[in-house]
Amino acid sequence: MSLDALQTRLDHRFRDAALLEQALTHRSHGARHNERLEFLGDAVLNFVVASMLFERFTKIDEGDLSRLRANLVKQASLADIAQKLDLSQDLRLGEGELKSGGFRRPSILADTLEALFGAVFLDGGFDAARRVIARQYQPVLATVDPKTLGKDSKTLLQEFLQGRKMALPVYTVVATHGAAHSQQFEVECAIAPLDIKVTAPGASRRAAEQSAAKLALEAAQAASPPKAGRRAPRARKTAQLSLPVAVAQEIK
Amino acid sequence: MSLDALQTRLDHRFRDAALLEQALTHRSHGARHNERLEFLGDAVLNFVVASMLFERFTKIDEGDLSRLRANLVKQASLADIAQKLDLSQDLRLGEGELKSGGFRRPSILADTLEALFGAVFLDGGFDAARRVIARQYQPVLATVDPKTLGKDSKTLLQEFLQGRKMALPVYTVVATHGAAHSQQFEVECAIAPLDIKVTAPGASRRAAEQSAAKLALEAAQAASPPKAGRRAPRARKTAQLSLPVAVAQEIK
Repeated sequence: MSLDALQTRLDHRFRDAALLEQALTHRSHGARHNERLEFLGDAVLNFVVASMLFERFTKIDEGDLSRLRANLVKQASLADIAQKLDLSQDLRLGEGELKSGGFRRPSILADTLEALFGAVFLDGGFDAARRVIARQYQPVLATVDPKTLGKDSKTLLQEFLQGRKMALPVYTVVATHGAAHSQQFEVECAIAPLDIKVTAPGASRRAAEQSAAKLALEAAQAASPPKAGRRAPRARKTAQLSLPVAVAQEIK
Repeated sequence: MSLDALQTRLDHRFRDAALLEQALTHRSHGARHNERLEFLGDAVLNFVVASMLFERFTKIDEGDLSRLRANLVKQASLADIAQKLDLSQDLRLGEGELKSGGFRRPSILADTLEALFGAVFLDGGFDAARRVIARQYQPVLATVDPKTLGKDSKTLLQEFLQGRKMALPVYTVVATHGAAHSQQFEVECAIAPLDIKVTAPGASRRAAEQSAAKLALEAAQAASPPKAGRRAPRARKTAQLSLPVAVAQEIK
């Protein structure tokens, strides 16, 4: 098995080829597997992404930095990068995992990518690991919107409405179906000033509210696009008085 | 305010004195406070400690590495180090925090220490940060027992008894006191083969069990000290058969 192509894509040529092989080895394949490397790689990844965010976004606070990082290093984000690196074809999986399609599983792809970062750190030191990680993350960071990435739909909708001095949306459970252990909820989200009413289903009230908020936000954005925003001019103080003040902080 | 002594204790002399001052500044003191530095410092600390553990404990798995790290970077551990560094006297706190004794608060001490690590990274690069962190953690790591650090008392007691082929301890709620919202539990922990029965109180059943397990473990260790251990010789297979097999994995 030649791992030349992968090393080119990573932009790191391993001095110790055994480290690279270990990083690609799932525990189902053998005793010399990648789980300790994954521990190390997770740590170096978290730090490098933290420091990239710190440098790039100099005005946002630590809460927003944490939210952004959590989103950039979550399993789905790592699995995306692993797919771009074509990692699937170089994985070393046990018989069972091979048959059940483990090479496509996001958790295995994400864990293996972390293990690779850990292996690069051991092989080439911190600067090598930083370079390899930055190469994968720079394109992602270039498109990050620090105001919205990683926020849930209810929070985004609330912020959208607050930015336009509008009242908070009203969520109402309009129906429940099914037995207690497998209930399905239908929630309506209403935004009176925009004349928006949408409903969405969910396996919990919370999930249904999020789905409804997502639909409502799309409708609200279509009704008042950002460029022709309906934000009340600063002079029109009276307009603010007629609307309830939003004090509730959305709990994520 | 001269920060010479602190820099000597940290073993890092700041090129940019403003960074050091910012790291020591609580948000109650001013706008240029240390919270973003804390985010960065937390990340570099987690990585450096991860890599120290990875190097030092070459045989333990990633679950144990994670447990050890969590314990070494938790607030209480950081506050300990901050106290050894005499950080209290150099903190820059607002009036209110000063009056309420903020310079003694573990959360403020721990956060400030993280911010200092972040500031060292910005000031001197990764190698400087690693050196400063390693200097504080090497004495701690030298005394770490990877088998026990960070495990709760019930887990430690179970492992102690399993290592001696003894049956699992039996926990019994022997009394509850107080109204529903402020109940107090008394739990007994019994280890029949060692003739140990202890009781302990707690604000929840879980907390009382942990307290009872701690007392029982102390009693069990006194009754069968490790050096004169009662571990059954390997040849005496019959001794194992007469005891229940412990299959339950303690949930932490």
